[in-house]
Amino acid sequence: MLKQEINELLTRTGPGTEMGDLFRQYWIPAMLAEELPEPGSPPVRVKLLSERLIAFRDSAGNYGLIDEFCAHRGVSLWFGNNELDSGQAPGLRCAYHGWKYDTTGQCIEVPSEPDNSTFCRKVKLTSYPLVKVGDILWTYMGDPDKQPALPEYEFCTVPSEQSYTSKRWQECNWLQALEGGIDSSHVSWLHNAGLKNDPLFKGSRGNEYNLNDMRPFFEVVESDGGLLVGVRRNAEEGHYYWRITPWVMPAFTMVPPRADHPVHGHFWVPIDDENCWVFTFDYLPVRALTEAELAAMKAGHGVHNEYEPGGTYRPLQNRDNDYMMDRDAQRRGETFSGIKGIAMQDASLQESMGPIVDRSKERLVSADSGIIKARRKLVAAAVELREKGITPPGVDPVHHRVRSVAAVLPQDASFVEACREDLVATPGVRQTTV
Amino acid sequence: MLKQEINELLTRTGPGTEMGDLFRQYWIPAMLAEELPEPGSPPVRVKLLSERLIAFRDSAGNYGLIDEFCAHRGVSLWFGNNELDSGQAPGLRCAYHGWKYDTTGQCIEVPSEPDNSTFCRKVKLTSYPLVKVGDILWTYMGDPDKQPALPEYEFCTVPSEQSYTSKRWQECNWLQALEGGIDSSHVSWLHNAGLKNDPLFKGSRGNEYNLNDMRPFFEVVESDGGLLVGVRRNAEEGHYYWRITPWVMPAFTMVPPRADHPVHGHFWVPIDDENCWVFTFDYLPVRALTEAELAAMKAGHGVHNEYEPGGTYRPLQNRDNDYMMDRDAQRRGETFSGIKGIAMQDASLQESMGPIVDRSKERLVSADSGIIKARRKLVAAAVELREKGITPPGVDPVHHRVRSVAAVLPQDASFVEACREDLVATPGVRQTTV
Amino acid sequence: MLKQEINELLTRTGPGTEMGDLFRQYWIPAMLAEELPEPGSPPVRVKLLSERLIAFRDSAGNYGLIDEFCAHRGVSLWFGNNELDSGQAPGLRCAYHGWKYDTTGQCIEVPSEPDNSTFCRKVKLTSYPLVKVGDILWTYMGDPDKQPALPEYEFCTVPSEQSYTSKRWQECNWLQALEGGIDSSHVSWLHNAGLKNDPLFKGSRGNEYNLNDMRPFFEVVESDGGLLVGVRRNAEEGHYYWRITPWVMPAFTMVPPRADHPVHGHFWVPIDDENCWVFTFDYLPVRALTEAELAAMKAGHGVHNEYEPGGTYRPLQNRDNDYMMDRDAQRRGETFSGIKGIAMQDASLQESMGPIVDRSKERLVSADSGIIKARRKLVAAAVELREKGITPPGVDPVHHRVRSVAAVLPQDASFVEACREDLVATPGVRQTTV
Repeated sequence: MLKQEINELLTRTGPGTEMGDLFRQYWIPAMLAEELPEPGSPPVRVKLLSERLIAFRDSAGNYGLIDEFCAHRGVSLWFGNNELDSGQAPGLRCAYHGWKYDTTGQCIEVPSEPDNSTFCRKVKLTSYPLVKVGDILWTYMGDPDKQPALPEYEFCTVPSEQSYTSKRWQECNWLQALEGGIDSSHVSWLHNAGLKNDPLFKGSRGNEYNLNDMRPFFEVVESDGGLLVGVRRNAEEGHYYWRITPWVMPAFTMVPPRADHPVHGHFWVPIDDENCWVFTFDYLPVRALTEAELAAMKAGHGVHNEYEPGGTYRPLQNRDNDYMMDRDAQRRGETFSGIKGIAMQDASLQESMGPIVDRSKERLVSADSGIIKARRKLVAAAVELREKGITPPGVDPVHHRVRSVAAVLPQDASFVEACREDLVATPGVRQTTV
Repeated sequence: MLKQEINELLTRTGPGTEMGDLFRQYWIPAMLAEELPEPGSPPVRVKLLSERLIAFRDSAGNYGLIDEFCAHRGVSLWFGNNELDSGQAPGLRCAYHGWKYDTTGQCIEVPSEPDNSTFCRKVKLTSYPLVKVGDILWTYMGDPDKQPALPEYEFCTVPSEQSYTSKRWQECNWLQALEGGIDSSHVSWLHNAGLKNDPLFKGSRGNEYNLNDMRPFFEVVESDGGLLVGVRRNAEEGHYYWRITPWVMPAFTMVPPRADHPVHGHFWVPIDDENCWVFTFDYLPVRALTEAELAAMKAGHGVHNEYEPGGTYRPLQNRDNDYMMDRDAQRRGETFSGIKGIAMQDASLQESMGPIVDRSKERLVSADSGIIKARRKLVAAAVELREKGITPPGVDPVHHRVRSVAAVLPQDASFVEACREDLVATPGVRQTTV
Repeated sequence: MLKQEINELLTRTGPGTEMGDLFRQYWIPAMLAEELPEPGSPPVRVKLLSERLIAFRDSAGNYGLIDEFCAHRGVSLWFGNNELDSGQAPGLRCAYHGWKYDTTGQCIEVPSEPDNSTFCRKVKLTSYPLVKVGDILWTYMGDPDKQPALPEYEFCTVPSEQSYTSKRWQECNWLQALEGGIDSSHVSWLHNAGLKNDPLFKGSRGNEYNLNDMRPFFEVVESDGGLLVGVRRNAEEGHYYWRITPWVMPAFTMVPPRADHPVHGHFWVPIDDENCWVFTFDYLPVRALTEAELAAMKAGHGVHNEYEPGGTYRPLQNRDNDYMMDRDAQRRGETFSGIKGIAMQDASLQESMGPIVDRSKERLVSADSGIIKARRKLVAAAVELREKGITPPGVDPVHHRVRSVAAVLPQDASFVEACREDLVATPGVRQTTV
């Protein structure tokens, strides 16, 4: 149960809000690199942290993320002409009167002004850096003087054939989406069918532990960048099966691995207060993804999903069609909630809570200790940032080099001690998995 | 003309409002029994008096109407698993973490808690009784200690082969819908074609009086449960044709009978302040409905209607398609408003007033005296309930045992005196009709 | 850059607002005459200046524009029966209880009232005159005692075979639409392809000047009814190419002519604060439109557009389909913004600014001097009307008799002096064009 004012603090991320300021300390995923595939690609509308922006890649290949609206009279630059190599400086030209901007938002031409005019130098749109790391274009929307080093999450630093990323539009506040990534106690219920059938989940010994012990024990430990959420289930005599989920502030979570399957994870990014982008990755530290694995991901298996036509990244299963609920499949036990696919099982329930769930009504239990601690850390970091200017955890790229772990340990072992090395992303070293 | 504050009082029925408190004194129709056809049926989302609820029927056949959202983290229980006979206590299990509720809203299992935990006993969702009487599942959303005896409206207490009930979603406030049921002066205009052509209306001598005298005289009389709205038209020399519409508070009205046709009526139930359910019934006190009559009702004749596909109970003719207005049919005089069907003739006009009509602008006339008196009774009852705790008319099931009447009486007869017995629902006695 | 309070003043036109009062001084286009083609035509819903109205043409051929809602209980008169010749007084009869209104909004029958009742004489709906001039039905929504003489714009006073008018629904505030009509500097950019390809634009020598000089010089001059916006581009040695756009207050603009093409223009009429009607005309002072020209207009060429099915006058290209943006056509230079058609090129950009553009963020340049002066004149007129009751420019029909002009003039000529006669609409005299 949360006071309404704390819920507001945690869920509002527009300019000037506490949580908005916190998000603006970090590099966050803005879009998939595939959305701007080549120099001169069409500009793309991007909304992040309640700001409406345009992303484009000029004819020289530079990436830019700038205010969506022309400084002149407010027309959307989405209609703009991303000029192909014309012998002139590259840039995006507004469709109305031809004002031209470079990728930093600097206006570089106002055609109606005289040749010797310096007017355009004084016109600069809000802009943020847009940098490709892995399959993602990342942005940093904070004070330029405090721009941190680039992200070093393992999924986006391994060789590209070892990693795959998708994104989906989720129609609810970012926090209730993130909380699903921290809360692994729902897996045994909501995703029980996926553990048995999904090509990217099935066939792990760990799944048996998962399905046989419906009463996991949670142990949540502080880490430099956020938390380690350890979940313990009974295993063979004298042993526990541990699943360890790292949360790196503010919005990065990983699913513990299963057998030799690729490792999954998410980045939960606010679009505005009632929508978020879920960036979803699969990667392996030491081998390329197989064609079968890639095909499964692209078909919406694992933690990925299918899409509505039209390039909006909205799932094919969505609130307008009740997520294609199949009551008969639910009856027959093929899915627990009647919803197909692990990703949409999560998304459907999280959206069903409403655009921003009222946390003053919730009843948390011990299995929610990861969620409880994550909220506290977010609030504390936001307050310390605002009051003392303290840089929050998760900004330093060292904090990014984490891994999720699945391991069977002796009952008397501390998961933090026993897995200390396994929890660090080390190039060339295989993930620790069961 | 009504003061805006009185209009607010009459039209707002959410928790804590005056009219909301009044509605919470009564058993009201929540849904059709066909929506929960058998034990273990899929749960159904139900919104009533601005409260979002889930109706379900557990594997043992018990009906329940509980808060839509799980007490844990607020997920919709619509995705829940209504467990089939599993050897365990029946109940609805949330799809997220498996919390299980019985039909009283009591949480009976929190799987992540220890075996000996008493936690779940402390978790109970808001719940209301859900009871089948006739073809309807009724609920009572008020103080459990004041729960009245079950409804005894004749349409839901006659043998089932004598009665048929449908419902439709109407996109306006409940009161302007109810007022259409009290106001029988519009029949000669809006429904004039229906009197001639509708298989469930045509062929009554009364229709001739209806169509020949466009200036009916209203006499509205208090009854124990609400009002008797008497409408007098000229008949043969020295006689009047009387149509008597009982209104039982808060939301029950009946159409006076025609010849041997089934008798129609409605229950007007607030979904929220801008939508209502119209429960529509046809019944006969002394004989079974014929197959032809049932077929006509199911085809949308009489006061029933056709539906959009998808099980939403939204009419096929609706505001998105301008109710399939047929100007040519209007021109040719086949319908007065261009809208097909008596039910949709009413619904289209009532929705055209806007979500909540502004009654400060209306100009009422003597033919509106039923409406005027009904509003006064509603206001008085709401105020007396709030200030003195007085139980309003219509709660006592004795008040439900009313009938509508159509009769030709001598000009000097009092309709109340002449029809005193006809106006009471007496088992085995035929309706009084012309 | 405009103060927010001035932006509010300029953009709000509902009853009681300053700009609303200003608009209510003028005859404005309410609808196309084709919408009420004959006596007894179906009534049409019309929203103007945020007022919801019904237009109808009674069986005697009289036009009326009255409150949409019946005075009785607020039902929409759109469902009403526009009675064909019945031997009775013509009128529109409400579908609910048969109240009947004439074209002045006067209630002429309340059927439920006694024969000798005078009640209906006291019931009169708000109503405005509706008068056909040219292809348009015009209304005047102000004080009846101040009703000015009828419009005398040339496009609606020439013989009907010389003129064609269409309308489209535009989903933004009227002012940002009008500003597009005053601002001719965007033509060289946004409409560059249209100048070359559109059958109603191409083949004018003026287009070459337009495309060769991207830095036009603006000279804006006061006129009796509003402004003359002169735009000068380089022409042959010692000469300038002038395009002169008259703006007649509050909302009339004309496009300067091209060769022998019909002359285009617009009337920008507020529906409410976030929508407007764009009335679009093409006419010639001295010859009939050819069949080819008419066919091109009806096909959506020139400043006209194609429509969604259903008679809503909503463009086929609209925000729901991203205006059918064709990035490949944009790449190939076939259109500058990727949008097909001059009308939709304007509409798409103007809608992209948002429902009401935030003018506190704009950066105007010298090419916007027409826009700047027009806003000032609107504000001044609204203030003088409110404070001193001064009738604004553009009310007197003499102000309507303007023409746009395209001319090549010696560099030292004043366009106002040189074109004084060309700028006046003179029957039988050809437009001045290049």
